[in-house]
Amino acid sequence: MTVAPSPIRWDGETLELLDQTLLPFTLRYERMSDAESVQRAIRRLAVRGAPAIGIAAAYGMVIALAPDRELPPHAFMARLDIVADRLATARPTAVNLRWAIDRLCRAARASGAATSRALHDVLRAEAEALHAEDRALCRAIGEAGLPLIEPGAGILTHCNAGALAVSELGTATAPLYLAHDNGLAFRVYVDETRPLLQGSRLTAWELDRAGIDVTLICDNAAARLMAEGEIDLVIVGTDRVTRNGDVVNKIGTSALAILCRYFGIPFYVACPSSTFDPATARGADVTIEERDAEEVRGFGGIHAAPAHIKARNPAFDVTPNALVSGFVTDRGLIGPPYPGELALLSGYSGGRRAPDAPTD
Amino acid sequence: MTVAPSPIRWDGETLELLDQTLLPFTLRYERMSDAESVQRAIRRLAVRGAPAIGIAAAYGMVIALAPDRELPPHAFMARLDIVADRLATARPTAVNLRWAIDRLCRAARASGAATSRALHDVLRAEAEALHAEDRALCRAIGEAGLPLIEPGAGILTHCNAGALAVSELGTATAPLYLAHDNGLAFRVYVDETRPLLQGSRLTAWELDRAGIDVTLICDNAAARLMAEGEIDLVIVGTDRVTRNGDVVNKIGTSALAILCRYFGIPFYVACPSSTFDPATARGADVTIEERDAEEVRGFGGIHAAPAHIKARNPAFDVTPNALVSGFVTDRGLIGPPYPGELALLSGYSGGRRAPDAPTD
Repeated sequence: MTVAPSPIRWDGETLELLDQTLLPFTLRYERMSDAESVQRAIRRLAVRGAPAIGIAAAYGMVIALAPDRELPPHAFMARLDIVADRLATARPTAVNLRWAIDRLCRAARASGAATSRALHDVLRAEAEALHAEDRALCRAIGEAGLPLIEPGAGILTHCNAGALAVSELGTATAPLYLAHDNGLAFRVYVDETRPLLQGSRLTAWELDRAGIDVTLICDNAAARLMAEGEIDLVIVGTDRVTRNGDVVNKIGTSALAILCRYFGIPFYVACPSSTFDPATARGADVTIEERDAEEVRGFGGIHAAPAHIKARNPAFDVTPNALVSGFVTDRGLIGPPYPGELALLSGYSGGRRAPDAPTD
Repeated sequence: MTVAPSPIRWDGETLELLDQTLLPFTLRYERMSDAESVQRAIRRLAVRGAPAIGIAAAYGMVIALAPDRELPPHAFMARLDIVADRLATARPTAVNLRWAIDRLCRAARASGAATSRALHDVLRAEAEALHAEDRALCRAIGEAGLPLIEPGAGILTHCNAGALAVSELGTATAPLYLAHDNGLAFRVYVDETRPLLQGSRLTAWELDRAGIDVTLICDNAAARLMAEGEIDLVIVGTDRVTRNGDVVNKIGTSALAILCRYFGIPFYVACPSSTFDPATARGADVTIEERDAEEVRGFGGIHAAPAHIKARNPAFDVTPNALVSGFVTDRGLIGPPYPGELALLSGYSGGRRAPDAPTD
């Protein structure tokens, strides 16, 4: 079984986070000592991707409160609130972060545990459950998507919806990892994903490390490869799917979907069913984060355009539901017409809540 | 009148080439002293773009042969052949280069001039004629495209089909420069154009310098801006148009054309009529240059992906004729159906020959 590089290592007592800012050239796990170190790691994007941030914060609470196990229970609970508030501010828009922290706080309160040691055990168990659920979601997504991977196929993905953003298998990458483990031969093309190059730095690296046949391309070369017949399937992740099935994901995703429609190539979106957001009617209702123009003017510290040149830098775009061949979820493949089939997922209450804002 | 930065300066005796490898941070003209210096400038891409290379080589012959004006005419002509051969090898695929050199050689032979000094005058006059023709072509293209530029419009361009690649006004940029001179207010969005970032380094720079409202975007953000209603027109250059109207241009061009079709945005291609190549039936018949994978893995010495990761790096793509709203040429706007209208241009014998291979 392929073990993809995990963003989070946990042995029951110690927490180590892979410093993704050093990838792909240095693979270094940093041991977390307290709430501050976890907060710092989240803030500086050492750990990224909504699910991974939530898991890291949950374990962060466990290690931060370990020294408080000798306090009286009421003092332990007061410390819990302080630590929770501190961790929750690491990235204000990362709703998974607050959701994971709240889940641990609720579990402690609901437990009726009489000692601080027992309360701490509850936190640990809840954090481990959260992590295990995430792994199970990825695996279920992988199994749902496995039938899409034909022998010899060329598959294009964008950005990093991989193991580094989630846990174990990732979302868009989960079917790829499982297919590879099943001995299937196929090629993966990875968009470099300007401006932050998550494709070059993260996805190409993690798939290659797993032994998958990876080829990197510039984002604007996808149409050429499609015209050559090299691409049989596009599969991407998503930050949020609105009630009508519109997909909010990394900038460049909607262009791929439009190219797929033109070339007759299936376009799939992989995500846990908790990513469906029935509270938002359509993609146009989602505010798209505009990031620093400096990211567009340069490349890894090199300036390509003069600093006074204006730039637009939308971090995400909206792919209209009509362009989505299907959703690859932990509850199976969901195809059109939308929102019909998606509505069944709206009542889904397990797993994670949908984030209110894209987080990568 | 806006004066766009010219890649070539000529005062009748001395030749200076703008070192485009230093753009956009250093604006430095290098004085050429002989055939070797021109050959070197072409080879290291200090001067680039098929038309500019041809003009630089023509002036290169004039300065290289200036010291030979005291030789007997037969010795001068022998030197002419040597210099011509040397310059023609600077970039083997740049057919404009060979075409320009041959044109000067033919002019000298056909002139019947009795002295080396007179032969040299013929070369100078022919080089200046070639340069003047190029300027006239750009201006005619600009005038043909002017009606496409609506007040307040958002116009997207890709790569550099600008003054730096040609002379004076460029091709895709010529209508923009003329519209700006006419006092029209409009916005230009420039694709950064990975992997070599000609959009960031050259196009954004030259348009901004001319006072045009420029906004840089990552290539993969074009669809988002189109969805926002920011783009009313896409205009690009081309390296070659085949008999059926297929367009060979910088990688990423075909994706823009497909997005334009999806969003109902006009997609225009600007080029001199000499760029139409009736000898090639369709785009699929053109061999697309595959460049070094290293360009995709990084930029300017910065590595984003590990050096062992495979990459595909097609330098050009083919836009099917069905996606082209029209050609903006020195002989006016040419619209579909193709190849009908294009066939009229095939007999065109003035100006430059079409290059056999893309050259940027």
